[in-house]
Amino acid sequence: MLTAPVLANDNIIPVSKETKDIATHLRDKAIDDDSAYEILKSLTTEVGARHPGTPGEKAGIEWAINKLKALGFDKVYTEDVNMNGWLRGVETAEILLPSYQKLIITALGRSKSTPEGGLEADIVHFKTYADLEKALDGSLKGKIAFISNRMQQLKDGGGYGPANIARSKGHELAAQKGAEALLIRSIGTDDHRNPHTGATNVAMGYTAVPAVALSNPDADQLVRLMDYGHSPKIRLNIQTKDLGPIVTKNVIGEITGRELPNEVVVIGGHLDSWDLGTGAVDDGAGVAIAMATGAFIKNNAKLRPRRTIRVILWGAEELGLIGARAYAKARQEDGTIANHVIGSESDFGAGPIYGLQSSNNVSPNAIHVVDTMAGLMGKLGVSRRSGDTSGGPDMIPLAALGVPALNLMQDGTDYFDLHHTPDDTFDKVNPEHMRQNLAVWTVFTFIAAEWPGSFK
Amino acid sequence: MLTAPVLANDNIIPVSKETKDIATHLRDKAIDDDSAYEILKSLTTEVGARHPGTPGEKAGIEWAINKLKALGFDKVYTEDVNMNGWLRGVETAEILLPSYQKLIITALGRSKSTPEGGLEADIVHFKTYADLEKALDGSLKGKIAFISNRMQQLKDGGGYGPANIARSKGHELAAQKGAEALLIRSIGTDDHRNPHTGATNVAMGYTAVPAVALSNPDADQLVRLMDYGHSPKIRLNIQTKDLGPIVTKNVIGEITGRELPNEVVVIGGHLDSWDLGTGAVDDGAGVAIAMATGAFIKNNAKLRPRRTIRVILWGAEELGLIGARAYAKARQEDGTIANHVIGSESDFGAGPIYGLQSSNNVSPNAIHVVDTMAGLMGKLGVSRRSGDTSGGPDMIPLAALGVPALNLMQDGTDYFDLHHTPDDTFDKVNPEHMRQNLAVWTVFTFIAAEWPGSFK
Repeated sequence: MLTAPVLANDNIIPVSKETKDIATHLRDKAIDDDSAYEILKSLTTEVGARHPGTPGEKAGIEWAINKLKALGFDKVYTEDVNMNGWLRGVETAEILLPSYQKLIITALGRSKSTPEGGLEADIVHFKTYADLEKALDGSLKGKIAFISNRMQQLKDGGGYGPANIARSKGHELAAQKGAEALLIRSIGTDDHRNPHTGATNVAMGYTAVPAVALSNPDADQLVRLMDYGHSPKIRLNIQTKDLGPIVTKNVIGEITGRELPNEVVVIGGHLDSWDLGTGAVDDGAGVAIAMATGAFIKNNAKLRPRRTIRVILWGAEELGLIGARAYAKARQEDGTIANHVIGSESDFGAGPIYGLQSSNNVSPNAIHVVDTMAGLMGKLGVSRRSGDTSGGPDMIPLAALGVPALNLMQDGTDYFDLHHTPDDTFDKVNPEHMRQNLAVWTVFTFIAAEWPGSFK
Repeated sequence: MLTAPVLANDNIIPVSKETKDIATHLRDKAIDDDSAYEILKSLTTEVGARHPGTPGEKAGIEWAINKLKALGFDKVYTEDVNMNGWLRGVETAEILLPSYQKLIITALGRSKSTPEGGLEADIVHFKTYADLEKALDGSLKGKIAFISNRMQQLKDGGGYGPANIARSKGHELAAQKGAEALLIRSIGTDDHRNPHTGATNVAMGYTAVPAVALSNPDADQLVRLMDYGHSPKIRLNIQTKDLGPIVTKNVIGEITGRELPNEVVVIGGHLDSWDLGTGAVDDGAGVAIAMATGAFIKNNAKLRPRRTIRVILWGAEELGLIGARAYAKARQEDGTIANHVIGSESDFGAGPIYGLQSSNNVSPNAIHVVDTMAGLMGKLGVSRRSGDTSGGPDMIPLAALGVPALNLMQDGTDYFDLHHTPDDTFDKVNPEHMRQNLAVWTVFTFIAAEWPGSFK
């Protein structure tokens, strides 16, 4: 006789009908709810940019505390995060030869200053970071290294990584080659004269040489000039400021779980933003979606979820996940990392969610829960997707410690038009998309906090 | 007996079959010709912005002379134009209350400076210029008057005039009401943080109070702050410079007529541009189209046209049609105005042409010629349109002296996204549209210069 086929696995705990019914009810109510959009409007309008070490950052933290309280979160608290501050000052560039033309640039994060009054140098053109690698060490003495390749525009943002090495590491390579400064085409997909800033790979302190991004049209202009046979000479003046040690904060709000209050589902976005825009798509949207999700579940679910929903508004993401690393390190040290059931961050703009990925940290016995979430999200245009995920940039340190994560994949086709530019402002956000995000996040968060099984 | 119906009018001179055949041949060849696009690329890349009193203006004039010669124009010359120069300097603005936020602004043309270091004042919001008119004289002491209405986006640019009164005359009205400065929403249809500059109604010298435009997203931000009940306090620092009397130039190139060399068909664009972008759609495109048209006809028509084609690259259009007024005044004084057979300027961007209008100065006996032109342009997507026209901004002084004009109507739907902003750059121009413009202008210009009758 053969053994009977396995019809059930003792380790698999189903998602109850009641849980699914509540999640469905929440989904269908959230899709008409503008609270995420309204929270984002308030943050981007009444606070604006939130770069660490600026008055805007302080105002943002205060705003977040007050807003979480006003939304009815059960606990609201902050945790200090130590970092070194960096501020942008003067930033100008001009083509001096073959004709005088102003360029629109911005310093990359932690760029060192040029000499006071600027430096003047010819540019040497490299189509890619890899091409600059091929130059002889020390061969660019007295020159500005210019990397011109353009980021590819893709729905999932897949063009970012390959292009971004010029931004993150170009300053070191340019220094190694002997250049006076690094000039890159913005890592962005638009054609507006808004340069894209962003962090360099410098944990604290300054880049090896001044590191600057040109707007896409300005990069085009330099390339065309060289195509005509000209050798552009540039004046570059960047003055930046090292603030030394400063303290920023992670701001945390909790909806306390009814049965397992020590077990936490982590959702969030990062509260800091670059200084050029008002941090609407990066990452006011994520902040607003996470805050709205916690409040919406508390106020609309007939049952307070079993576990605690911890909304973390991460600090200093842009300068290297500084708040997220501090949070994870502290949880590793005090052992509470074990209480982190699952998590995700919304940090890819304000576009609609189309896919749901689960990380390899999610137990095979919990995959059916993710499938159930995706099934309920189907009506919202979301489908189940393969592939591993950290669950968002600020989830990386937690994921590295084994915390399971989901990725609520947003359509990021336009994200890198705005990312890290002055154009990252509230007017770019579609309220319908914010409602869809709230509905999707509500399904995920409620089920994750309510399903009694383990995701690990 | 009744008189026979009028079958012919002795005064009506037909367009010959040969003329139509040549125009058709030129049209069908020009639609594959990239010379206008290439000329525009060279101007915007190798010269850049061309604001009167800057090195770019000088470079632009030199470029134009050399390019006209290289294109084979029979005569190339310049005419001096006297004006007062005005330069933009520092321009910064910040919201101080309720939270510190940087605003992106630009001074309007001929704006006076704020006190050194700037001025600080609350803003008073007026939805329209008409609303500001209703304020009591002297009632805005110590305040900044803010006009927030948004320009409507229309194919024919019809939203520009109604909105633009805030830019052209707002400074006088704000002064009359006692305000310290005028702050307007940019006269533009985009949503990027690129403010739109543009002239105020000040022939020479300075505006009555500092006059500044906010980018559209920045104007939205102020409106939203006030909708929340805040009273924004602003710091505004504009430093501008009066250059006093300077000399600019109209640059002129001619294809000499084979039979009636003293009779001229005037086509052109304006060579000056605002300082923020590189003057691609305003009006490098018009310059390039006119230059390419003259050269294309000379090099491709089997018959040199009967009349002279005079390509005028107007100087200092942006500050009040200064080159065009000087040109017309000189022709009125020396009597050669009578030799100006017909004219048109291309100064509405680089979009495709969809319509052909004739001015009321065109004789009824010449209307059939315009109809013939439109018929030949039909294949290019152009149809005959009603309505009077000056034939373009720089044609206004000539039209006022009775010179007949046509309007080659371009689709300007996107024109005011770019107009007078840093974003007016070459990458925005579609080469297919430039080819279509060249083909349409070639049909008009060849027939106007070849048809032996009078347009007057």
